[in-house]
Amino acid sequence: MKEKVVLAYSGGLDTTAIIPWLKETFDYDVVCCCIDCGQAEELDGLEERAKMSGASKLYIEDIVDDFCDNYIVPCVQAHAVYEDKYLLGTSMARPAIAKKLVEIARKEGAVAICHGATGKGNDQIRFELGIKALAPDIKIIAPWRMTDVWTMQSREDEIEYCKAHGIDLPFDASHSYSRDRNIWHISHEGLELEDPANEPNYDHLLVLGVTPEKAPDEPEYVTMTFEKGVPKSVNGVEMKVSDIIRKLNELGGKHGIGIIDIVENRVVGMKSRGVYETPGGTILYEAHQQLEELVLDRATYEVKEEMGNKLSQVVYEGKWFTPLREAIQAFIESTQEYVTGEVKFKLYKGNITKAGTTSPYSLYSESLASFTTGDLYDHHDADGFINLFGLPLKVRAMKMQEAKNHTN
Amino acid sequence: MKEKVVLAYSGGLDTTAIIPWLKETFDYDVVCCCIDCGQAEELDGLEERAKMSGASKLYIEDIVDDFCDNYIVPCVQAHAVYEDKYLLGTSMARPAIAKKLVEIARKEGAVAICHGATGKGNDQIRFELGIKALAPDIKIIAPWRMTDVWTMQSREDEIEYCKAHGIDLPFDASHSYSRDRNIWHISHEGLELEDPANEPNYDHLLVLGVTPEKAPDEPEYVTMTFEKGVPKSVNGVEMKVSDIIRKLNELGGKHGIGIIDIVENRVVGMKSRGVYETPGGTILYEAHQQLEELVLDRATYEVKEEMGNKLSQVVYEGKWFTPLREAIQAFIESTQEYVTGEVKFKLYKGNITKAGTTSPYSLYSESLASFTTGDLYDHHDADGFINLFGLPLKVRAMKMQEAKNHTN
Amino acid sequence: MKEKVVLAYSGGLDTTAIIPWLKETFDYDVVCCCIDCGQAEELDGLEERAKMSGASKLYIEDIVDDFCDNYIVPCVQAHAVYEDKYLLGTSMARPAIAKKLVEIARKEGAVAICHGATGKGNDQIRFELGIKALAPDIKIIAPWRMTDVWTMQSREDEIEYCKAHGIDLPFDASHSYSRDRNIWHISHEGLELEDPANEPNYDHLLVLGVTPEKAPDEPEYVTMTFEKGVPKSVNGVEMKVSDIIRKLNELGGKHGIGIIDIVENRVVGMKSRGVYETPGGTILYEAHQQLEELVLDRATYEVKEEMGNKLSQVVYEGKWFTPLREAIQAFIESTQEYVTGEVKFKLYKGNITKAGTTSPYSLYSESLASFTTGDLYDHHDADGFINLFGLPLKVRAMKMQEAKNHTN
Amino acid sequence: MKEKVVLAYSGGLDTTAIIPWLKETFDYDVVCCCIDCGQAEELDGLEERAKMSGASKLYIEDIVDDFCDNYIVPCVQAHAVYEDKYLLGTSMARPAIAKKLVEIARKEGAVAICHGATGKGNDQIRFELGIKALAPDIKIIAPWRMTDVWTMQSREDEIEYCKAHGIDLPFDASHSYSRDRNIWHISHEGLELEDPANEPNYDHLLVLGVTPEKAPDEPEYVTMTFEKGVPKSVNGVEMKVSDIIRKLNELGGKHGIGIIDIVENRVVGMKSRGVYETPGGTILYEAHQQLEELVLDRATYEVKEEMGNKLSQVVYEGKWFTPLREAIQAFIESTQEYVTGEVKFKLYKGNITKAGTTSPYSLYSESLASFTTGDLYDHHDADGFINLFGLPLKVRAMKMQEAKNHTN
Repeated sequence: MKEKVVLAYSGGLDTTAIIPWLKETFDYDVVCCCIDCGQAEELDGLEERAKMSGASKLYIEDIVDDFCDNYIVPCVQAHAVYEDKYLLGTSMARPAIAKKLVEIARKEGAVAICHGATGKGNDQIRFELGIKALAPDIKIIAPWRMTDVWTMQSREDEIEYCKAHGIDLPFDASHSYSRDRNIWHISHEGLELEDPANEPNYDHLLVLGVTPEKAPDEPEYVTMTFEKGVPKSVNGVEMKVSDIIRKLNELGGKHGIGIIDIVENRVVGMKSRGVYETPGGTILYEAHQQLEELVLDRATYEVKEEMGNKLSQVVYEGKWFTPLREAIQAFIESTQEYVTGEVKFKLYKGNITKAGTTSPYSLYSESLASFTTGDLYDHHDADGFINLFGLPLKVRAMKMQEAKNHTN
Repeated sequence: MKEKVVLAYSGGLDTTAIIPWLKETFDYDVVCCCIDCGQAEELDGLEERAKMSGASKLYIEDIVDDFCDNYIVPCVQAHAVYEDKYLLGTSMARPAIAKKLVEIARKEGAVAICHGATGKGNDQIRFELGIKALAPDIKIIAPWRMTDVWTMQSREDEIEYCKAHGIDLPFDASHSYSRDRNIWHISHEGLELEDPANEPNYDHLLVLGVTPEKAPDEPEYVTMTFEKGVPKSVNGVEMKVSDIIRKLNELGGKHGIGIIDIVENRVVGMKSRGVYETPGGTILYEAHQQLEELVLDRATYEVKEEMGNKLSQVVYEGKWFTPLREAIQAFIESTQEYVTGEVKFKLYKGNITKAGTTSPYSLYSESLASFTTGDLYDHHDADGFINLFGLPLKVRAMKMQEAKNHTN
Repeated sequence: MKEKVVLAYSGGLDTTAIIPWLKETFDYDVVCCCIDCGQAEELDGLEERAKMSGASKLYIEDIVDDFCDNYIVPCVQAHAVYEDKYLLGTSMARPAIAKKLVEIARKEGAVAICHGATGKGNDQIRFELGIKALAPDIKIIAPWRMTDVWTMQSREDEIEYCKAHGIDLPFDASHSYSRDRNIWHISHEGLELEDPANEPNYDHLLVLGVTPEKAPDEPEYVTMTFEKGVPKSVNGVEMKVSDIIRKLNELGGKHGIGIIDIVENRVVGMKSRGVYETPGGTILYEAHQQLEELVLDRATYEVKEEMGNKLSQVVYEGKWFTPLREAIQAFIESTQEYVTGEVKFKLYKGNITKAGTTSPYSLYSESLASFTTGDLYDHHDADGFINLFGLPLKVRAMKMQEAKNHTN
Repeated sequence: MKEKVVLAYSGGLDTTAIIPWLKETFDYDVVCCCIDCGQAEELDGLEERAKMSGASKLYIEDIVDDFCDNYIVPCVQAHAVYEDKYLLGTSMARPAIAKKLVEIARKEGAVAICHGATGKGNDQIRFELGIKALAPDIKIIAPWRMTDVWTMQSREDEIEYCKAHGIDLPFDASHSYSRDRNIWHISHEGLELEDPANEPNYDHLLVLGVTPEKAPDEPEYVTMTFEKGVPKSVNGVEMKVSDIIRKLNELGGKHGIGIIDIVENRVVGMKSRGVYETPGGTILYEAHQQLEELVLDRATYEVKEEMGNKLSQVVYEGKWFTPLREAIQAFIESTQEYVTGEVKFKLYKGNITKAGTTSPYSLYSESLASFTTGDLYDHHDADGFINLFGLPLKVRAMKMQEAKNHTN
């Protein structure tokens, strides 16, 4: 019996061409695994296609809820944003996929896992670190880095190769943006984006929504609730997290929300430029933060910001299955105990504008904040506070004066 | 000869009432000092008003350029943002004012400085820490905290008090938002904002610009240049920083940019809610960051983000004249050496959208970022990189498997 | 019926004098509460003394195990060290005491809690923040800050006052170091220590141990075990944490371990100088870290160091009962899952020298670390790793050369 | 004319064998470069040895002062310590060496630089990142990773290879610890150290000093001065930094100071175990910190600790010639402005014990620290301070009580 390899399969040209190549190069049985993170691809005919390409088996696995509940939610709670802009759409999905690939590899008794990520990107790292952490004994095959044995250089080469191996499928040889999509976002790279001096061709590019210019002229109000940091409802309707994200995608896409254009620093050492659409995610981050403003104290907020930055680095680097990610998540979860309440906001042409926030655990006190004096606040306390808060500055100034006088 | 006090004087009711009060309570000569940070107030008649109120002297000091060059620019370079939203408009101005007050106090031989900040806010801290650090020997008088001797509780009381002291000026007793304005921003507190559940009444509230809804339907492209992190020109016209900010305020205000609604944590321990307009500042932060994306490497960017957060805390807390602020600024300045280049962006109804960036020091390499292979990048290197980058995860997984087997 | 106040009572002169003073000044019933954190004071006759002084009741509460398990252990696990030297001996005890005081106040229906901490120190803050967080409605009385009504200025004054109120006890009026002791440490302040230019008079000063010079000439080996970061045994004998600390205090004191001399920055804004003895604690920190070296990965270790520093600040500032402390502790606990194993070390004249460490979860791999090549490590991987790890530096250098050439 | 390679040459067996190998494998002219960082090796006969081995030229470069002034001093000022123990002795030297190698390569017009670091260590990274940053166009040759063409596996192989190429030198085939030495430290790896369960064989191992047990029974007092963070004198004698380090090495070695035993995490992903001697360096770090305690304020100290940790990571990873290292150093330098004064301490059997510190810029105020009340400190201020400092905790407690009551 042949050894098995599990292939992360999308049904596209790249991963389809890998099937015969794996058989030819390694004499493996190829188990294809199409993992659905909400990429909204056409799954019809996928089984047929995989079989025609020589796969011995095809798994189609829907992990959307796992992805939303266990990968996206912790990042939302942490406000993990890479380099101040990127909401980690692709980064968060890779470990979720790697985990499922390992699960199937174990079930099938496979000796290897193969992915189609390129040799210059971050995704190869995220897939492989995930696999290493969960199944250190499983071999990883990355055809795009095996330039000695993987000789295809273009889509034309791949189509040719497929045909030569009896796979006659209607692939398109035309070049477009390089994209990655899941329920959280879609990324676009390539074409005019390769030169940061160019403005993106948004009309050509956007998939999940429209530009602010094309968004409706009428604003739309939305309410959301959270319980312990987890989104619970939109506009009064309770939904599971994945449905909340779908609903917010619809709203955000309609109103031109969540389009960013970024030159980011990849883990492998170069800068790359992309346009990302995260319509629902951008709303979710903002809405969650709107609530946290009422509930978190200053010291917690400050350190939580640092932790969120660290988490963004860890996730971006593909280090999901590590003790550090677990420890950061434990920190974040601890802060979410009282992040419960309702937020209202308005969507209008790319803008999310707060329109009122309430929480049973709000730390805001109208009487304290206002100019009147109450039981809780004696203005004289501010004298003492400032005197001691400023004491180090004052002592320092006096000592420096003394030292100066002494020197002169 | 009487001892002198320097009074931070705005010409408004509050600080006008302080003049006779200082004379009456302490028997001081009152030297009024109106410090112009770009608040765009009517300065005509100010001298007359001060004199009528009993001041022995009035200084009108324009520190706009000092404020822009030495306080705003370092914060822009650091991307110092307090609690993820607030661009520190009031926080940055206070130390600049404190410095000038001390300068005049020294010149006049004054023994005290008096300010009209309330006893619940942050500004009292910022003024006083500034004064303590620069002139530890000078007495500070904060009438609003001296509830034993300062007995006025309302604008009506103040008007009454002024009249009783022969000051008959046309003050308005009506209540409005509590506002602070300078060239960088305007803040609004009070009225409906006191309950975070309320949506702000923007039409009533805004001063520097309009809401996105009322902004023009036509987008507007803008180009800016920076040299070593300092803004140099807008739309091809070289200007000093203060004029750049004025120009950007005009553009940003017109297009509904930079309006935020925040519940923030004050230094004195309570939450407060405000709406801030920072039209030009918001553009400036974004434009500067747009350029940094091309120029800063990943490691520097990451630590600089932390430093920016720390600076925001330090500045918010009024600790401008401290060794820590100086050290953070030294860090930031060191990173600005190559932040030189041109950015282009589009303003449209609250949105700032990048439209192309160039720099002679760009670290972006199109050939590196693209999918082709070149001299600089061998795909096999990624094998080695991932193997070592992931080695700790793999070793850990293996060791944990061993430990588990050993236990079972 | 009179209102009650709970007094943190030590049996010493200061807190004894407070009893009649509280009755006289506020007409309270005084419930004394002597909380034992391991200060090893003579408790005999305490009840009699309290009663003679006019207390209506005396509680003697042993919280040593609570203190060790719930306050000390989390700080050990975090390696929380304030300003690189101070093991937080007093800081950790204050919230534990505050919690017990609140508990008794609730049980007794008391309206106030009184403590004898001075107005210049950190302890007043730690007591009061603890009380505010746990019982915001309870009034706090700090006689030493009430200089209007508390008029005693010296021990002589206090003895006089006691006598005048019928309390004739053998108090010593002589001045010594100001000390605070519990099972974890003893601190010394005052006398010659007040000038940092002076060498401490260790022979006069030390209580828990001897100087290295006076320690035995023979080294002593010790073994310890930990389970999930909690100390479990010393020299093969399983003990509860408090007994482990007692045992380590004995060993450390004997061998001159854990004496520090520090000028530290207090929360209230001034520097103070103290000598602290933490013989067992110093060993415990080192032993725990010795084990973590084997078990924690690099990334976790790095962030854990930062979290430990933050915890030291939070604890030093008395912010134990806060969401931030809880979140940091959640982070730390998550890292302790595999901190299980045995450490051996040698004590000799102030030195703790490692003598071997083992753990079932050790990440150390002899074959990986050595110079031989094995399955896990291919030297060629280092080529790829270094090429990508160094890619940003190389690209930057090339771009800077280009820019320079372009300029010239 | 042949192309040239610059070889980092130590005169030992490893780098001597590389000379004929480079000629044979690449047909290069080999320019040897022996860079003296204070490793105290015998340089006599080195030229002859290099020439006999086939080198076309030998440089002997003394960079000790550059190393001390520009690499060690910044790390001392930052208190950069890797993983809480390692004073970066080897890490700091590598970039200094790389810089000199590049300098000579430029002078000689060489196309490549060759080093003898192994493929599992950190040093290969440090050398190569240094070279990449300073001379991105120069080729790097690391024979120990070139397992296809570098076939020697043992010292015996190398001796054999040398003999076969006419190099008959008295090399010792015996195995010892793997060591790296410079003026700052010596590291030891290998032999019994490879198992962390073993106690180090110190009597066999130590080179720069003795164990505490073997140190003198008499303590020795030392005084040092610093100016702006730079060490200036020892025991009243002004010296350049390198001589200060030499003097402190002598003192520290004699008294058993600065021996550590560590399991550390290498950059290439595995743990390694070493014993390091840093006698003078350990004293220098402590002495500098002793002075900083008097001079730095709390806020600066706290952030400086973080910066020191970051610098230790950056330096350990070989990223010396980067904008981040420059920015961190700018931060640190800014804090050193007033680190001027005298420290006195006592050395005794592994202990460094403070014995008095003075500085014209000391922020310590005896009157402030003591229990008496003075002009600068009003005990009532502490009331106000604590009330506001604790306000967030109190408000939170009240709000949580309210929320709880509301829920029940």
